[in-house]
Amino acid sequence: MNEFDLIRRLKPLLTVTSSVVTGAGDDCAVLANPGSGREILLKTDIIVEDIHFTPTTEPSRIGRKALARVISDIAAMGGIPTAAVITLGLPVDFVPERIEAIYAGMADLARQYHIALVGGETSRSQGVFFINVALTGWVETGCAVLRSGAQLGDALFVSGELGGSIEGHHLDFTPRLEEGRWLAQQRTVHAMIDLSDGLAGDLPHLLEASGIPGAEIHASALPFRRSARLRARSGDTAKPAVAAALTDGEDFELLFAVAPANAIRLLDGWKSQFPNVRISCIGRLTSQPGVFLRNERGLMPVTANGFQHFS
Amino acid sequence: MNEFDLIRRLKPLLTVTSSVVTGAGDDCAVLANPGSGREILLKTDIIVEDIHFTPTTEPSRIGRKALARVISDIAAMGGIPTAAVITLGLPVDFVPERIEAIYAGMADLARQYHIALVGGETSRSQGVFFINVALTGWVETGCAVLRSGAQLGDALFVSGELGGSIEGHHLDFTPRLEEGRWLAQQRTVHAMIDLSDGLAGDLPHLLEASGIPGAEIHASALPFRRSARLRARSGDTAKPAVAAALTDGEDFELLFAVAPANAIRLLDGWKSQFPNVRISCIGRLTSQPGVFLRNERGLMPVTANGFQHFS
Repeated sequence: MNEFDLIRRLKPLLTVTSSVVTGAGDDCAVLANPGSGREILLKTDIIVEDIHFTPTTEPSRIGRKALARVISDIAAMGGIPTAAVITLGLPVDFVPERIEAIYAGMADLARQYHIALVGGETSRSQGVFFINVALTGWVETGCAVLRSGAQLGDALFVSGELGGSIEGHHLDFTPRLEEGRWLAQQRTVHAMIDLSDGLAGDLPHLLEASGIPGAEIHASALPFRRSARLRARSGDTAKPAVAAALTDGEDFELLFAVAPANAIRLLDGWKSQFPNVRISCIGRLTSQPGVFLRNERGLMPVTANGFQHFS
Repeated sequence: MNEFDLIRRLKPLLTVTSSVVTGAGDDCAVLANPGSGREILLKTDIIVEDIHFTPTTEPSRIGRKALARVISDIAAMGGIPTAAVITLGLPVDFVPERIEAIYAGMADLARQYHIALVGGETSRSQGVFFINVALTGWVETGCAVLRSGAQLGDALFVSGELGGSIEGHHLDFTPRLEEGRWLAQQRTVHAMIDLSDGLAGDLPHLLEASGIPGAEIHASALPFRRSARLRARSGDTAKPAVAAALTDGEDFELLFAVAPANAIRLLDGWKSQFPNVRISCIGRLTSQPGVFLRNERGLMPVTANGFQHFS
């Protein structure tokens, strides 16, 4: 059984109360916060050695990544992060200087985004080294951009570039906090998600949450990260850039859906607001079930692992 | 280097913002929440297999414990818990039915305390199985009971009974949420902490946070849990009940400090409010540096590992 199957089995067990505006299944939970004009956002996330970083990853970049990932989730709601608590799982032979450097990297990013680090726990964890960050924040009441609001015919946009994150972007990415905030304020974004499992992995989450049958992606519109393009040229067995953009994961870009009638204005607004951050209209939401890639050869079905042409 | 030394080195690296009312170092963090009349509480905690539970522990009790521990932290602030997010670290060979039963145990307790479980993460974690719970809640602005408000001469109280938790209490304890809430509302409790590392381990945290040099504990006033008394009689090498009460850990009772002038009224109020929950005045805060145990032989210095008589 994989993690997604397990999560599907656990989800019905989760409890709901009148405080829950949006529960499990979005980038963050949204909680009522009466009287304040704000709702509370809450998210937890973990990085584990040998999965999300290695023993030789520069410690400050490990700490940075642990926090940046959850900031990206707040960004995908259109919110503002405020405070985080950290859990460290420590191998028996941990090196204090490495942990300090990890914390210093996390603190640098926290300062940059005015996030308080308000506590944590440490625990022995046999051989495994991991860092869990729980982050809270807020968004104006009713203004959180959910995964679930997309509509048939919406245009699909993505910030930045996709693919090849493993070359360094997964450690050094800038969470799209300002951009997410701006998008939420436009009030024309129907749904939004941050890309952590790759476009082909995360787009279905947005579709499922919104009850939309399918989507069509235009291969020629996909924005490739430089590292994805370089890797695609690295040899005969290299992953084509289109496949990388669909499946590489850890892009931490924003994927969002906008009604076609509002798309041009949003595009223009973005370009004047964020002249240095690319924005791409990569496709649209359709009634044909499934995700499809349109390229010069026609339409090809896409799965979370790529598109069938490559399988 | 042990965990406390590591935490001491990491604490100066934590970032603080204007949102922080009380940062790292109390049972929960307290965050400003303008306009609502409430402050936000935030806490994270982890339990790890072979440390906090075993492969043969009944799964529902594992889940219960994971959540109950953080509820106890909210209780120690005088707050109300609202919502939790869960991170599971899964060994490769995890059994889905066991995870479901753990979740079901957690959900049962969550329902009892009106806590929403609003999401989570799962991650592979090589051989280690762990559960991290981050819990948020609230307390009326200015009403959180901190560790840092104790005053010289205060009487020290403890709820419930101490010691022998390993016999089952560590899995089945009732977080003192109602009691913590009631204590906060009395406005006469100067400082409070929940007992997770044993009285001898946690009392110094309260003293240090409050800038109080020492405390005197009356051995004859310590409330022993039945399991602590039974274990004390189990053989010549058995741990005396007094030592168990001081050092066993995982009591999850409330330890709090009250001015002597208010002690009797508080005691009377407690007894009428919680007739089935024991309350004990176990000592007082003093200017003599260190924690001391007073028994029939006089005063003995106590360390986090017990009292010197036993070392």
